[in-house]
Amino acid sequence: MKIAVDAMGGDFAPKAIVEGVMSAITEFPDTEFQLYGKESEIKKYLTTEKNIKIIHTDEKIESDDEPVRAIRRKKEASMVLAAKAVKEGEADAVFSAGNTGALLAAGLFIVGRIKNVERPGLMTTMPVMGDPEGGFDFIDMGANADNKPEHIAQYAVLASYYAENVRGIKKPRVALLNNGAEATKGSELTKATYELLSQTADINFVGNIEARDLLTGQADVVVTDGFTGNAVLKATEGTAMSLMSVLKKSILGSGLKGKIGALLLKDALRQVKKELDYSSHGGAVLFGLKAPVVKTHGSTGPEAVHHTIRQIHTMHESHVIPDLVAYFEEEKVADNAE
Amino acid sequence: MKIAVDAMGGDFAPKAIVEGVMSAITEFPDTEFQLYGKESEIKKYLTTEKNIKIIHTDEKIESDDEPVRAIRRKKEASMVLAAKAVKEGEADAVFSAGNTGALLAAGLFIVGRIKNVERPGLMTTMPVMGDPEGGFDFIDMGANADNKPEHIAQYAVLASYYAENVRGIKKPRVALLNNGAEATKGSELTKATYELLSQTADINFVGNIEARDLLTGQADVVVTDGFTGNAVLKATEGTAMSLMSVLKKSILGSGLKGKIGALLLKDALRQVKKELDYSSHGGAVLFGLKAPVVKTHGSTGPEAVHHTIRQIHTMHESHVIPDLVAYFEEEKVADNAE
Repeated sequence: MKIAVDAMGGDFAPKAIVEGVMSAITEFPDTEFQLYGKESEIKKYLTTEKNIKIIHTDEKIESDDEPVRAIRRKKEASMVLAAKAVKEGEADAVFSAGNTGALLAAGLFIVGRIKNVERPGLMTTMPVMGDPEGGFDFIDMGANADNKPEHIAQYAVLASYYAENVRGIKKPRVALLNNGAEATKGSELTKATYELLSQTADINFVGNIEARDLLTGQADVVVTDGFTGNAVLKATEGTAMSLMSVLKKSILGSGLKGKIGALLLKDALRQVKKELDYSSHGGAVLFGLKAPVVKTHGSTGPEAVHHTIRQIHTMHESHVIPDLVAYFEEEKVADNAE
Repeated sequence: MKIAVDAMGGDFAPKAIVEGVMSAITEFPDTEFQLYGKESEIKKYLTTEKNIKIIHTDEKIESDDEPVRAIRRKKEASMVLAAKAVKEGEADAVFSAGNTGALLAAGLFIVGRIKNVERPGLMTTMPVMGDPEGGFDFIDMGANADNKPEHIAQYAVLASYYAENVRGIKKPRVALLNNGAEATKGSELTKATYELLSQTADINFVGNIEARDLLTGQADVVVTDGFTGNAVLKATEGTAMSLMSVLKKSILGSGLKGKIGALLLKDALRQVKKELDYSSHGGAVLFGLKAPVVKTHGSTGPEAVHHTIRQIHTMHESHVIPDLVAYFEEEKVADNAE
């Protein structure tokens, strides 16, 4: 396969990106990496040129650029060129650690939606606490600010395919994020969505899940609208960060006794951090597009880049996107026949 | 003042409730406590009968009762009688640690809304990490599943009055929970709400806040719709609980070295737990009603009951509710005059 890599996206680009590619290339010798960005900068971090193609450009999208405008005006930006390569069939997938909004826009306007998928959603595999192997696919994390029940039902199908084919989970349990576990609970949106999910034939819908149970492994897929998904994700991250920071401060402030404790506890704290870090599952997929468009954190390092390339590779090998294209095509035919 | 206490609500009722009242009574010798519930049970925990009135009833609302039905059918339940006492002017406020939904229903249908307040919201003072004295008032935490911009603008006024008069914060900074900090960000609901908050004269609106910054003390009041508020609150609680549990497990599982570390670190962990515990600010207020209707966690102990009684007492002393009644009355007069 061929992966179009935005080598200039992210806080530590191109170093972290190119180093990540160099690390992945030995695992995937069948893959061609197209690196979009400043050639002289990229070359500094190459350890091999085999299966590497550099497409030089001086332009790039900054993290504070207004997404849609940036995509339209910076036609030679590394991210834009990478997305165009997919559109024109020169690459099979796009990877970037750059401006999330711009990548969403590039995905929608350049790569394009799967036919009949109304609103692609942003999906990440989140961690399950106490189960380092566990995880659940959470969609929409914020690609859309307003979603209809129909969009969320499509997320359920998209993420089920992903959980089954990319993560290898048989009959993944799909849950709806809601304000109560009972079937009758919810807002107008979640009640209508619950109804629709109950009628969706090709998923294993197990009912509602509350935000407090997200990290406990009760579901393999959790669907929600992009506004709520974004809020819940940020609340989870914020709480974890605040807690770790209070803990650190308390330890440092508590004198010698605390410092000895901290030293001895280092392994335990590292374990917590490891369980919170879900980058081993890869990055966030803008899901519902004609090709994998995948984003990692701007602060990503080479290891996370490598994990994300593995994720993209598995998406390609598992044919999850062609399968979904066929599914949504048939869905529409069935709808029209009714 | 007179406080109607549902002595039978909560997991440890009536013991925890009555002990909390006994603890509070020395701080507030001017206050009459009306204890609704099983007289023989309540009497076991009384250390004084001064300013105590027991109103015996055998009926009570269970934690799994369907709220609205329970309120309508269990007419002699301790919670219902406590709410009725406020309605009939025999008490100034209701306190319960029982079924949240039932207390919301009792508040709405028995105590009643402030005129022109459309949808009372559930409000709690949440903690600010690293600042034990800090806190922000978060409303609506989930009294409503669907809110309109007008409701959220009313929450901003209600909570500003509370922050200023009950918590003593001058010109409290009011922020809107949103999916981005910029003014242009948001869903249809939050964009319209932002517009409305910008035009609300009597509040100090400081713009959007993201869920990841909630616990960092950037605002004194944070307003949101009840669905999002509920999701964010539960995500925060769930993450904190999961994290503490992973940490505990890691410590116990890491052998002697870890156990010694845990012992030494006890103070630091206790500090974190203390910072997360926001019960010192009192309970959750169903705000927008004609009287204070206040709820604490079902698992509440005597100390949290005492704190909540202090909160109710301050609400009464500060005249925050009569002031709000006058405010919303005038608002409507002004609206009609336009």
